[in-house]
Amino acid sequence: MSRIEIQDEVVYYDTDCGGVVSNIAYLRFVEKARCALFADLGMPLKKTVEDQLFPTVVRTEIDYRRPAKLGDVITVTAGVAEVEKVRMNVSFSLTGKSGEGETVLFAEAKQTIALISFPKGRPARIPPEWLDTR
Amino acid sequence: MSRIEIQDEVVYYDTDCGGVVSNIAYLRFVEKARCALFADLGMPLKKTVEDQLFPTVVRTEIDYRRPAKLGDVITVTAGVAEVEKVRMNVSFSLTGKSGEGETVLFAEAKQTIALISFPKGRPARIPPEWLDTR
Amino acid sequence: MSRIEIQDEVVYYDTDCGGVVSNIAYLRFVEKARCALFADLGMPLKKTVEDQLFPTVVRTEIDYRRPAKLGDVITVTAGVAEVEKVRMNVSFSLTGKSGEGETVLFAEAKQTIALISFPKGRPARIPPEWLDTR
Amino acid sequence: MSRIEIQDEVVYYDTDCGGVVSNIAYLRFVEKARCALFADLGMPLKKTVEDQLFPTVVRTEIDYRRPAKLGDVITVTAGVAEVEKVRMNVSFSLTGKSGEGETVLFAEAKQTIALISFPKGRPARIPPEWLDTR
Repeated sequence: MSRIEIQDEVVYYDTDCGGVVSNIAYLRFVEKARCALFADLGMPLKKTVEDQLFPTVVRTEIDYRRPAKLGDVITVTAGVAEVEKVRMNVSFSLTGKSGEGETVLFAEAKQTIALISFPKGRPARIPPEWLDTR
Repeated sequence: MSRIEIQDEVVYYDTDCGGVVSNIAYLRFVEKARCALFADLGMPLKKTVEDQLFPTVVRTEIDYRRPAKLGDVITVTAGVAEVEKVRMNVSFSLTGKSGEGETVLFAEAKQTIALISFPKGRPARIPPEWLDTR
Repeated sequence: MSRIEIQDEVVYYDTDCGGVVSNIAYLRFVEKARCALFADLGMPLKKTVEDQLFPTVVRTEIDYRRPAKLGDVITVTAGVAEVEKVRMNVSFSLTGKSGEGETVLFAEAKQTIALISFPKGRPARIPPEWLDTR
Repeated sequence: MSRIEIQDEVVYYDTDCGGVVSNIAYLRFVEKARCALFADLGMPLKKTVEDQLFPTVVRTEIDYRRPAKLGDVITVTAGVAEVEKVRMNVSFSLTGKSGEGETVLFAEAKQTIALISFPKGRPARIPPEWLDTR
């Protein structure tokens, strides 16, 4: 049911000597969006610490489509794509605007998440109603 | 003359296994604030690329006062503290709110910046009117 | 034909407040191994700059198996898994040793790489003999 | 008494779009050297976790002298410069070799460190014999 959107600007530390955003840096944008998504699902960061229940990444896939550059504003859209018993898939789309105002797709990603209860490390049940049905 | 403020939330990649924000990660918050300050001074990131004139850090000092944690919102205030011919000092204050709503000082930093003109690598004159006189 | 191995120790900046290596940090270990692999294939970093021919990541997949912790030594093995005309797949295995001396699999990754010739951004032919046939 | 030296190569994620090592990335090299220094002082990373006694950075100063680039090998030398009751200063020098084989100074840094005992957060006494007297 949940789908969120964040925006952040590419600064120096996001780029590498190829003049574009480093393949690793896109995953920081993805992580910010994931944190916003879980906040929207009722698990803001402070609450995950209180409850000792952490959304944990067990798999990441990311396809790099077109390079983002210094000063580009990246919009990350994130939504719950699939829900299984103890795993869920979150899909991410990272887009921007070209100089001509057209939407550019920088990257697409998917992460598989488990909710891990600490300190025992046990996976918790994923609420089925979290599925984004839009 | 210029003084700006940004806010950003501490996410997982900002923290380390001590349970607090990594000493290195604070410098990402500082860099975001520095980019915002130079945008405010008339040098947004896209323009630095067009003009090939880059604010370049030649020295950093940072004092860590109290640890920030996951989910804390860090406010970074940045202002031009000193202006010399080809160097300037920017001062940064990183603060947050305690659970009781009191202001907490996480860190204070100062960076010495030169404006470097590419590709020759020549330092450019710093506009004296950039000094924050408030 | 090529297969390399590197080792590096987990330090503070690799970990997050969950007490384990951050999902993003593993990709720094992967990148170090990728650079070592291309050096072994005849493309050390300095030569990629001279030739303006850069191995560029177009896709990453990574599965996180068991968490690595502060002070663990991670061994990354990397080899060329598939070679197509203008794309190649490199597979990575990240392992360590448990307290009892048994091998632990931290993560497995695969990256699709194109060789991009600058400044035109054209993909170059991948040498078919790069395939790791062992 | 202690003085150590490490070497590491500049890879893509260390650089930014200025074509040189990012000001923030040098602090990763500094952190690796600091971990090696404390290991040499009898506090390897695994032991800091067992003892819950962590060298904690309370201040960093770094002067950037000449830019390091992709593929450069950075040698970091670290030694204990001063020892007070509950604080110590560690000095770092980051050097490399020019194309002509001459030593190049990339950066110099100094960090003030406290030994913090967890979970109480109390500072421990610094052994005075740690001072590098050479």
